[in-house]
Amino acid sequence: MLGNFTYCNPTRLYFGKDAMQGLEKELPKYGKNVLLVYGGGSIKKNGIYAQVKAALEKYGKNVFEDAGVMPNPTVEKLYEGVERARAAKADLILAVGGGSVCDYAKAVSVSVHCDEDPWEKYYIRFEEPTCEIVPVACVLTMVGTGSEMNGGSVITNHAQKLKIGHVFGTEVYPKFSVLNPEFTFTLPKYQMVAGFYDIMSHILEQYFSGTDDNTSDYIMEGLLRSLIHSASVAVEDPKNYEARSNIMWTATWALNTLVAMGKDTDWEVHMLGQAVGAHTDATHGMTLAAVSMAYYRYIMPYGLAKFRRYAVSVWGVDPAGKTDEAVAAEGLERMEAWMRSLGLVMNLTDLGVKEDMIDGLVKSTLVMEGGYKVLTPEEIAQIFRASL
Amino acid sequence: MLGNFTYCNPTRLYFGKDAMQGLEKELPKYGKNVLLVYGGGSIKKNGIYAQVKAALEKYGKNVFEDAGVMPNPTVEKLYEGVERARAAKADLILAVGGGSVCDYAKAVSVSVHCDEDPWEKYYIRFEEPTCEIVPVACVLTMVGTGSEMNGGSVITNHAQKLKIGHVFGTEVYPKFSVLNPEFTFTLPKYQMVAGFYDIMSHILEQYFSGTDDNTSDYIMEGLLRSLIHSASVAVEDPKNYEARSNIMWTATWALNTLVAMGKDTDWEVHMLGQAVGAHTDATHGMTLAAVSMAYYRYIMPYGLAKFRRYAVSVWGVDPAGKTDEAVAAEGLERMEAWMRSLGLVMNLTDLGVKEDMIDGLVKSTLVMEGGYKVLTPEEIAQIFRASL
Repeated sequence: MLGNFTYCNPTRLYFGKDAMQGLEKELPKYGKNVLLVYGGGSIKKNGIYAQVKAALEKYGKNVFEDAGVMPNPTVEKLYEGVERARAAKADLILAVGGGSVCDYAKAVSVSVHCDEDPWEKYYIRFEEPTCEIVPVACVLTMVGTGSEMNGGSVITNHAQKLKIGHVFGTEVYPKFSVLNPEFTFTLPKYQMVAGFYDIMSHILEQYFSGTDDNTSDYIMEGLLRSLIHSASVAVEDPKNYEARSNIMWTATWALNTLVAMGKDTDWEVHMLGQAVGAHTDATHGMTLAAVSMAYYRYIMPYGLAKFRRYAVSVWGVDPAGKTDEAVAAEGLERMEAWMRSLGLVMNLTDLGVKEDMIDGLVKSTLVMEGGYKVLTPEEIAQIFRASL
Repeated sequence: MLGNFTYCNPTRLYFGKDAMQGLEKELPKYGKNVLLVYGGGSIKKNGIYAQVKAALEKYGKNVFEDAGVMPNPTVEKLYEGVERARAAKADLILAVGGGSVCDYAKAVSVSVHCDEDPWEKYYIRFEEPTCEIVPVACVLTMVGTGSEMNGGSVITNHAQKLKIGHVFGTEVYPKFSVLNPEFTFTLPKYQMVAGFYDIMSHILEQYFSGTDDNTSDYIMEGLLRSLIHSASVAVEDPKNYEARSNIMWTATWALNTLVAMGKDTDWEVHMLGQAVGAHTDATHGMTLAAVSMAYYRYIMPYGLAKFRRYAVSVWGVDPAGKTDEAVAAEGLERMEAWMRSLGLVMNLTDLGVKEDMIDGLVKSTLVMEGGYKVLTPEEIAQIFRASL
């Protein structure tokens, strides 16, 4: 905890099988007009939509729908949502879905009463809201981004080839979120395990940075050990409530700002993975999985003490009689074996990347400065090549 | 995470060497009249009082003082504070001190605009506030209770021989708290290490309960490992900022409700220790230390799997070739050795307890039901006797 920092997270979470009761508790606090935001309609198949609608009707809300939010919400969709929210005179924006739906709801909430162009204001000029903010709430159906308890909001502008995230202040955080682990049961296995690795990567990218002794690192070791155990259970038994509930809770705390307090962070794996995502249609978590082992093996010598600690504290490697390098390498071997056991995609070739795309990938990769090695373009190319 | 729960913690924390800048950021948000609450005056010796006063004057506040809050704030002091807050027409109650000062400030805040007797309403009938609540803020000078980020408020009624805690809702939590680890540097060693063990006990009493697989337990293992390491550093070098800052942060998260989410908790060690406190003048953390080893060794067979896990995950015991009992016992041995290395009081005799006081102690001990063994009066007597 060497740095100065401010921590505040006012989102109220209703967690568990009965979490929808939280929605009923909260609805009376808000006005009549509710903009109900969701994605492709899977919530109509699994019954979540019906439950939400019933609660809204019970409390006499006027429901205005805004469906079709895509996995990477676009600026065009944002403009449409703002118009819908204005027409509805929305008192509350209720996001039912995963991180994309929740991110999008926040973008709408800060734009409804704003005369300026929201893309220019928030995603190009990174300004803070200066207008009234419509409260956002969330019913979570997919875990990973932590958007249910943070200010993150990523919007994509295809015309400008830009995907930009604004991290808003606490006034834009969801006022409340409903976290029922059972709502995540119906996700297909490929998406499920990709999400597990996305969570893992969120933690690792905050962990592998800094050389100080920091309570945040110890908390992350706990979250990692819980995630590793529960993911191994859930991949065999996706409806195991204990495992899925632990994973849902871990996902929230992996990215609601707590574990970054007072420490440096890296985020280079997300930059590598997002470059892959920009050049392919690959699932986000799989792009991270495909580049991780090559990245971590490459930077290990620059952060050896932390990689040794990771091996011992997270993977239970016995260090007796071994060099630090051997201990650290054994930790990464165990990590790789675990990733393979989940069925993650372990190379870029399986995601459709070919050797001749590497120059383009390198150009699309942002270089972060918080990790153990600030990568050169040559090093980035080398990591992509080793990931093929 | 098997249970249903609601989590919300809106307190804003300003942490680090520059944390007092947070006070300056916050003061303009509140009205002119500030009730400045503190204890015995040590803040006048170490310069914290002067810093706080300067900030209050800079923002043109009318400062009304309420000094002399004692380690166990009394109901008589509460009545006095309510009168002072009313006379001041307080817009903000600023607590400068440790947990007692902060607990007391919350009790005043819910009583200023309340016509009923606050002791009867909040501590006997456990009602919730129905009147306007005066906002509370905190500048922390001593770590341990987590009162800087929770709703806890313990008040003592000597006439009725009762010391009762009310856990208020989020509307009573401090609006903001200033956490500067340097403000804890001047605490005498005896109080410092007693505080370290109080934090340890807060975590252990939430950890040693339940048989489910729960993310909260993994987070606690992380907090425990951080605390054990940092306490060992700080006892040799009390001005080690890294260690003291990690301890301050760990203390807050040990008792701000997070690690209890979705799980059972015990709290029997606090019941045993508080009984000792009621019959002696002993320092709270030392009463916990003096009874802990006897308690944990007694209940170990009833929660063997968790004690084995504690030994391996927290104390690094190598389980190879050992029985579960042997592994668990080795963990407790390492814990005891660490406690002795800190200079904690390890028996009740050193706190002034004699054999003939044990019947009285047993009568004063509340029996909790969340731990691995619900104790009978005979078992409680046995644990006290083993602690002599």
